[in-house]
Amino acid sequence: MAGSVAYLGPAGTFTEQAVHLYKPDAILHSFTSIHGVALAVVSGITDEGVVPIENSLQGSVNETLDILISQTGLSIRRELVLPIEHCLLVTPDTQMSDIEVVYSHPQALAQCREFLERCFPKAQLVASLSTSAAVADMKESNHASAAIAPYGAAALNNVRVMAKNIQDNDSNVTRFVVLADRDSKPTGWDKTSLCFSFAEDKPGLLYEAFGEFVRRNVNLAKVESRPSKHHLGEYIFLVDVDGHREDPHVKKAIDALQRRCSMFRVFGSYPRWNDPEAPAHPQS
Amino acid sequence: MAGSVAYLGPAGTFTEQAVHLYKPDAILHSFTSIHGVALAVVSGITDEGVVPIENSLQGSVNETLDILISQTGLSIRRELVLPIEHCLLVTPDTQMSDIEVVYSHPQALAQCREFLERCFPKAQLVASLSTSAAVADMKESNHASAAIAPYGAAALNNVRVMAKNIQDNDSNVTRFVVLADRDSKPTGWDKTSLCFSFAEDKPGLLYEAFGEFVRRNVNLAKVESRPSKHHLGEYIFLVDVDGHREDPHVKKAIDALQRRCSMFRVFGSYPRWNDPEAPAHPQS
Repeated sequence: MAGSVAYLGPAGTFTEQAVHLYKPDAILHSFTSIHGVALAVVSGITDEGVVPIENSLQGSVNETLDILISQTGLSIRRELVLPIEHCLLVTPDTQMSDIEVVYSHPQALAQCREFLERCFPKAQLVASLSTSAAVADMKESNHASAAIAPYGAAALNNVRVMAKNIQDNDSNVTRFVVLADRDSKPTGWDKTSLCFSFAEDKPGLLYEAFGEFVRRNVNLAKVESRPSKHHLGEYIFLVDVDGHREDPHVKKAIDALQRRCSMFRVFGSYPRWNDPEAPAHPQS
Repeated sequence: MAGSVAYLGPAGTFTEQAVHLYKPDAILHSFTSIHGVALAVVSGITDEGVVPIENSLQGSVNETLDILISQTGLSIRRELVLPIEHCLLVTPDTQMSDIEVVYSHPQALAQCREFLERCFPKAQLVASLSTSAAVADMKESNHASAAIAPYGAAALNNVRVMAKNIQDNDSNVTRFVVLADRDSKPTGWDKTSLCFSFAEDKPGLLYEAFGEFVRRNVNLAKVESRPSKHHLGEYIFLVDVDGHREDPHVKKAIDALQRRCSMFRVFGSYPRWNDPEAPAHPQS
């Protein structure tokens, strides 16, 4: 059974593309916020949910990190990595020289800044709530306008692709996570995501926490901090380590770390995405 | 001489409030982007620039971090901390029961989510490029609408404050940094901000980097990572440590760390903000 998947919509977004890549036959349910996707999974409306967690240029998606920290009953089951290719969409009768306004999500506008400054130096840039909303904003606009959105949004909205691959940086990829009620079994090529914080602000606590992994040869693949939301300067640390939480050395490190922390949570263990530029799978 | 200060405008933003707090007599120049403020300082248009760097609920302002990483000739001279108090502004003749649309910057909408869900469950939330732009969007709107913006924006735009302090969380404060061509002299109560990265992805490098501070009893006050923008999974680490870069133990740690890194930069040393809830100044 393909199952049902909630995703950050509407249709035509990069997240929908990621779902198609993951489960082409799934029944899709679009939600207007990352929080909505998380609640769909927790409440059982869908089996799984797909949300963006990190972009190679913009960094982490904070709403996703904050939901993982605060929402119980939610695990990371898989990661998906998708190249982000932006297009400039226009209504069928719009000419390049006419364009006065360009709509998109602020992240997409930022990712195409050089293209816009060089090709549309006089255009007004207007923020939309998503790349799909940008297409709607463009169609409703009183000005000759364009929208920055994924290729797939063109056919869906009956508009024209004026330019393709307009992002400034070709290493623009987004990592998505599949959320579910439980994580994945060990495959021998996994990673584990977790978070922790300390009750006191003592020098060396974070260093000693990292030491639990380093001493057991567990690689720290990613370190991130989020505000505790209680007081400026108090943080929750989010860490990705190589290996599965059931691998003996990872398990020992996690158990030892947990004893040092006032707050601790494993988001899940799941197969590492096969990055073609990364070193070969050690077991293949 | 009070000097001239560039800030993330337009007038009526929280950043402008922070500048007034810092230098009430300065000549102010508003810029439409954080990048613009940085370039104003680097090019000598103004003596200093003020931009937000961190909010206690939303976390770091990535654009500011990325400019500190990439822009040479720019130092952090001071930090400023301001409580963020949002207001709901309306045109003089708008009644509460009429409101169909609420405009604001996505961060402000997020910070007032509970208030909006409880008091305006049916209102459409529309993203604006800044809280000031939200007031303009509200005034131009065809719908009965409101804008979330700082108190100071009301008088400036000739609109009415319908509700005050509508943010969900009272510990909502923003930290700003003053950018200049050089940092501050030691005061005995300082912090130092820096960034670094490694040429290779070897387990334990970050741990050993932190060890240079911990071993010398230098407290790591903040750790943050940003994407390298070259390849997903490559990061630049940003660290705040207690103490001035000229303090002997801090200087030794910095020198030792620099030898471990492929990229290294000190953003500056500057007086720590006097947080009334923080432990007392050790020298006062």
